[in-house]
Amino acid sequence: MGPLGKHSQFSDGYYMFPKLEGEIAPRMKFQGREVLTWSLNNYLGLANHPEVRKTDAEAAAKWGAAYPMGARMMSGQTSLHEQLEDELAEFVGKEKAYLLNYGYQGIMSVIDALLDRKDVVVYDSECHACIIDALRMHIGKRYVFPHNDIENCEKQLERATKLAAETGGGILVITEGVFGMTGDQGKLKEISELKKKFEFRLLVDDAHGFGTLGKTGAGTHEEQNVIEEVDLYFSTFAKSMASIGAFVAGEEKVIHYLRFNMRSQIFAKSLPMLLVEGARKRLELLKTQPELKANLWKIVNALRNGLHENGFSTGQSNSPVTPVVLNGTVGEAAALSYDLRENYNIFCSVVIYPVVPKGMIILRLIPTAVHTLEDVKETLDAFAAIKEKLTNGEYRNSEIAVSFGE
Amino acid sequence: MGPLGKHSQFSDGYYMFPKLEGEIAPRMKFQGREVLTWSLNNYLGLANHPEVRKTDAEAAAKWGAAYPMGARMMSGQTSLHEQLEDELAEFVGKEKAYLLNYGYQGIMSVIDALLDRKDVVVYDSECHACIIDALRMHIGKRYVFPHNDIENCEKQLERATKLAAETGGGILVITEGVFGMTGDQGKLKEISELKKKFEFRLLVDDAHGFGTLGKTGAGTHEEQNVIEEVDLYFSTFAKSMASIGAFVAGEEKVIHYLRFNMRSQIFAKSLPMLLVEGARKRLELLKTQPELKANLWKIVNALRNGLHENGFSTGQSNSPVTPVVLNGTVGEAAALSYDLRENYNIFCSVVIYPVVPKGMIILRLIPTAVHTLEDVKETLDAFAAIKEKLTNGEYRNSEIAVSFGE
Repeated sequence: MGPLGKHSQFSDGYYMFPKLEGEIAPRMKFQGREVLTWSLNNYLGLANHPEVRKTDAEAAAKWGAAYPMGARMMSGQTSLHEQLEDELAEFVGKEKAYLLNYGYQGIMSVIDALLDRKDVVVYDSECHACIIDALRMHIGKRYVFPHNDIENCEKQLERATKLAAETGGGILVITEGVFGMTGDQGKLKEISELKKKFEFRLLVDDAHGFGTLGKTGAGTHEEQNVIEEVDLYFSTFAKSMASIGAFVAGEEKVIHYLRFNMRSQIFAKSLPMLLVEGARKRLELLKTQPELKANLWKIVNALRNGLHENGFSTGQSNSPVTPVVLNGTVGEAAALSYDLRENYNIFCSVVIYPVVPKGMIILRLIPTAVHTLEDVKETLDAFAAIKEKLTNGEYRNSEIAVSFGE
Repeated sequence: MGPLGKHSQFSDGYYMFPKLEGEIAPRMKFQGREVLTWSLNNYLGLANHPEVRKTDAEAAAKWGAAYPMGARMMSGQTSLHEQLEDELAEFVGKEKAYLLNYGYQGIMSVIDALLDRKDVVVYDSECHACIIDALRMHIGKRYVFPHNDIENCEKQLERATKLAAETGGGILVITEGVFGMTGDQGKLKEISELKKKFEFRLLVDDAHGFGTLGKTGAGTHEEQNVIEEVDLYFSTFAKSMASIGAFVAGEEKVIHYLRFNMRSQIFAKSLPMLLVEGARKRLELLKTQPELKANLWKIVNALRNGLHENGFSTGQSNSPVTPVVLNGTVGEAAALSYDLRENYNIFCSVVIYPVVPKGMIILRLIPTAVHTLEDVKETLDAFAAIKEKLTNGEYRNSEIAVSFGE
């Protein structure tokens, strides 16, 4: 059953595959009861923004869900796809952008198209599953550096440079703008500095930074003032943009090459028009309503400061992703999470092994622009209570923990 | 620039990335002019069916494009996802089904989750790019058999059986219900027969067979009377269902395992609710309006018979996909396609190298339930005319062919 499936008899439908019902908002229903929700990457609150909802409804009425049909290259091209691409490119400070029909397969094909067997990859050890899957298709050499360890990254670049000189290939460095589990930013600035010593192309997956970081919300490259140095910028629409689909942006000639060579885009259907129209509206709001990002950060800061004052660690996070790092078994994590949901009405995701090391529990809180300071207070109170129980070992011998066999 | 990109200065925006405008129908606009379109996998005509359009509009108004957010396992589960899964499983004759957020990455993760390094894969040489990409991630051994060559498939199964006995792994055979370029069905019946001699699991990608083949439209496994023998049945929603998303169906315990182990589903967003509602309506129509499939086949047969009467070959096709196989250079293909569009108002996809061997041109026609017999006649007349020109070498020295350097 695999590491996540082995507890399925206890977890299925509650800890895993829970149903959150109602409009996407801080208060949703879980098993018929209202819970305060900190699990959705709806950073800017756009999922349920009236203008977004209006556009989504109108676009679906106008186009249906089918249009356009076929792959972009064959019969799935439209002027609105191109227009959104121009708007995205301008927003993230790149010459050109290209839409992707889904983020996961999209970035896989970006990486796959950029590489041949002569090329060498240097990448952060905590890169997202989609990047790892892409690298699993790469026949050439790859060197991994421990998460955000720039000294080691430099060592890997030395090795890569030596090898690339032999093979005649190039070097692609891959990292993320924000690491989604721990919330710490990738060290884009430090990696960019290494361009003075090494020749490489830098690809950044900024799923969680797009819309939340940087002066204009353009992303982590803007935040760290390395817009030029990031050669290829990728983001999904599944977080701040509250939709699906994705894009990649960079130099015109590279994007032009990618259009003709990304297998998941050549051989699968174009992003539906209703999502293109929806993304254009979301991008417009992201650009014209800076108060959304300001609200998000008001909540992030209140939550984070409160947690710190209560003695919690939020690890290295310097993004909206707020991990509350605790120690305990999988069984304790389950008992604690049950207590939070049933007795404190707090719904948050619990991240356990194998996503994080054994013995670590991360309660991952995703603040949004539509949470309130009252929501924060309620949550801080609940966390203080469960922390005490965890420390006192109250969850360890609970029925739930025992049922997990730990 | 790669094989498809190298002609981009001539092809971009016309042969590649053309824009088809207006409602999805046999008559659409290309560069401002109405063309008769044979390029869209809208087999049953559902894309623009009034009930589908109504459901798509209402579902978007009700849910927006964002709901649910997060991966299925984390926060993206709903009762409607489960209900659609039950309906799909019943329709294709399997115990259980699971929705996939996109077909390309979905089947990649199905295959990836089913395999470990001990397992051996036997697959058809013309499997779709998504299957090939999945196999590129596989560390274990794979054996390919020439397209639909059952004698060779048996040889590969002998080799695979020997190897699997050594490694202690299992054997996965992968083929397609209908091969999308050539339109011939995979030999599911013959492969199933081999189960008497070998132990393996059979996975079928039925993107083009779902909705178009079989008595009830359930797919190629129904058509060939091997519903039980196909262990895992996969289809995208991008063809007959005129949407995006996909599903996999099979034995309950296997589907249960897949839910917890498919990386692109665990680590990426759930299929949006508006598409789930849309898919339920499409499935309902597919089941309750058999006249859609009857119309499709009326057009398929009229087109095919007419082509054959006019001396054209449609290869081995025994599905709605109708390839008109011609011989010529890439330049001739371009000139011929230009002539068809500009002078005969016929828009169809031209498939050239590297998708088919060098020197082969396939004009790929996709009949649908909403084409008419008049559309067929108009097309047959045009094809007779262009065939004569091709045979007479008229395209060879045309300005377009010359500009392609051939």
